[in-house]
Amino acid sequence: MTSYNAACMPGDGIGPEIIAEGRKVLDAAGEKFGFDINWTDFDTGAEKYLQTGELISEDELKELGKFPAIYFGAIGDDRVKPGILEKGILLAVRFYFDQYVNLRPIKLLQGIETPLANKKPEDIDFVVVRENTEDFYVGIGSRAKAGKQRDHLEVIRDLYSVKFGVDVETDSDELAYQIGVVSREGSKRVMEYAFDLAETRKKKLTSVDKANVLTDVYGLWREVFEETKKGYPNVTTEYNFVDAITMWFVKNPEWFDVVVTPNMFGDIITDLGAMIQGGLGLAPGGNINPKGTSMFEPIHGSAPKYKGKNVANPLATIWSGSLLLDSLGEHAAASAVVSSIEHSILNKAVTKDMGGSMHTSDIGDWIAKDILR
Amino acid sequence: MTSYNAACMPGDGIGPEIIAEGRKVLDAAGEKFGFDINWTDFDTGAEKYLQTGELISEDELKELGKFPAIYFGAIGDDRVKPGILEKGILLAVRFYFDQYVNLRPIKLLQGIETPLANKKPEDIDFVVVRENTEDFYVGIGSRAKAGKQRDHLEVIRDLYSVKFGVDVETDSDELAYQIGVVSREGSKRVMEYAFDLAETRKKKLTSVDKANVLTDVYGLWREVFEETKKGYPNVTTEYNFVDAITMWFVKNPEWFDVVVTPNMFGDIITDLGAMIQGGLGLAPGGNINPKGTSMFEPIHGSAPKYKGKNVANPLATIWSGSLLLDSLGEHAAASAVVSSIEHSILNKAVTKDMGGSMHTSDIGDWIAKDILR
Ligand SMILES: CC(C)[C@H](C(=O)O)[C@@H](O)C(=O)O
Ligand SMILES: CC(C)[C@H](C(=O)O)[C@@H](O)C(=O)O
Repeated sequence: MTSYNAACMPGDGIGPEIIAEGRKVLDAAGEKFGFDINWTDFDTGAEKYLQTGELISEDELKELGKFPAIYFGAIGDDRVKPGILEKGILLAVRFYFDQYVNLRPIKLLQGIETPLANKKPEDIDFVVVRENTEDFYVGIGSRAKAGKQRDHLEVIRDLYSVKFGVDVETDSDELAYQIGVVSREGSKRVMEYAFDLAETRKKKLTSVDKANVLTDVYGLWREVFEETKKGYPNVTTEYNFVDAITMWFVKNPEWFDVVVTPNMFGDIITDLGAMIQGGLGLAPGGNINPKGTSMFEPIHGSAPKYKGKNVANPLATIWSGSLLLDSLGEHAAASAVVSSIEHSILNKAVTKDMGGSMHTSDIGDWIAKDILR
Repeated sequence: MTSYNAACMPGDGIGPEIIAEGRKVLDAAGEKFGFDINWTDFDTGAEKYLQTGELISEDELKELGKFPAIYFGAIGDDRVKPGILEKGILLAVRFYFDQYVNLRPIKLLQGIETPLANKKPEDIDFVVVRENTEDFYVGIGSRAKAGKQRDHLEVIRDLYSVKFGVDVETDSDELAYQIGVVSREGSKRVMEYAFDLAETRKKKLTSVDKANVLTDVYGLWREVFEETKKGYPNVTTEYNFVDAITMWFVKNPEWFDVVVTPNMFGDIITDLGAMIQGGLGLAPGGNINPKGTSMFEPIHGSAPKYKGKNVANPLATIWSGSLLLDSLGEHAAASAVVSSIEHSILNKAVTKDMGGSMHTSDIGDWIAKDILR
């Protein structure tokens, strides 16, 4: 029997409850399809941070690096300032393992209602491939204060005062700036991933940018797209400005097959995508390094107020588990998981938020049983 | 009789046709409400750029500065690379006149269908106040090449190589970067505008940011929002991350009253807003400097392929004209214009894209007549 090792980071709030359901389902899929997953738990999250001040240590990261896959619940806690946990844990893992693909299937499952009028499951079925390690997520920026970052402050000050005639020097703490970086290699590898994916689907790839305003970073992105597409003559390509694509997601989602996007725009349009596929309760995500350690997570947050109530909807987590199985090469098991999610929906074996009467802990049992049937 | 001077920049593609209709309507509103508008035309746009290489000159800008309002059609031409006309004309005007408010009413008019299921005109009626002079629109960035911008290249190179262990020096032309700047004053003034507006409406203001990732620029934005709201105890406030707000626009647009947003996110969410109010054919915009020269424009583009065909939908332009009247203080006339737009829709006196059979040039006549009735 094949045996896989996987790491598990349940995190905060509802994280542990939804991950428990996901594991039931993945274990059942293993039983059915003849493999085994040995789980190792990591207790990273808000609780540990509040108690010890530690987010994620170099040692933990090294330890995590021994696993091909991490199953991640959710992080976030009202007692912690926005940005601390997200940057210190979630983004830290994405960057440390160079998980350059953020994979987001946008698929309206049978039995789910979309907020869009007159759209059916066959109209909403595409995949967003979000670049996950560059752009405005690199975390470079500062307030315009004299101090240790004086060097780049000076540059900004010069640029800013030339441009606006503002004397920043006398206005310390009056400005903040943020730098985004896009690289040729970083764009190429994620675009190649997206083209490869499009070749296995309807062979259409849409690239998102805002090359008419952020001409530097997205001008390079577009240039690399032009070069990369030469290697994929069978794939039809098009550009959408990020503002326009939000319109077409809502008006004509059936136009899309695979969408490749820089990091920050990807963050925005995948949440919109989550809503048109029925909401955050149904939106899975993978952070993928095809040759390294990948991480799979529902894209919703930790919903602290539902913690411990056994009411959270675990479907996005279970679906993310299916992406995890895909990354291990267990494609049949991965498809079976998605089919059984659909069965649970059609049988109304769902939580309250989806109009059902089941508890969180019932859902994993139901789906596991369905897989094993 | 009161007399106003206004500038007119019809621009490219369908621009001249839709602006002609807008002027018919504003002139009729003047006749009805007792004022006069003296129009002065400017021929800025792609045609002039292609013939002379000139985008907009300092002299033209100075000339435009004599007018309180500019009525702008659209710019854009397939023969010009993305960014040239947008940055060289549209953004140049916004920045030169420090039009720090981009005002975007999102209102589902009676008789219009939204792509959202089960939403009615009373559910979609809010205003987005987009900051319009800062953020990633400041146009600061470069490729990582040695050369005249060597200074800030060096800073980026250091930051980037510390962060990623990449040796950029040997990889010239392999990176691009873009810098966004947010200032305390720049945030404060647009937030005050938004709070003032909320006080005249349902007294609720939502601030958009991504302070959990772009902690520098949007951390400052959030700090200024916290300070500014102290001056408006009657206004209820909330934060939405930009990714989340795209979900709520689609799922619960009735939650919003006034939304204040940094520039780039504003660009994205106002296009989404345009779609939920029925599409670009119905989305007006104003670029406002409350003490200077403002510019009013439909938010759609120049649609070159419909140029000269007398089929373009002028309603967004006419509605933008209503915002222009508002900026002149002619509020009764401004409301009358919007009412007559609604009458034209209810009477199916609309262009083909809206299911009618009228031509562009009929619409201005119809609405002008309706106002004068
Ligand atoms: C929590 C946050 C840092 C994260 C992001 O912005 O990437 C989330 O919104 C996502 O899309 O995974
Ligand atoms: C044309 C473009 C430069 C512009 C912008 O990005 O601001 C447009 O999309 C808008 O929203 O007015």
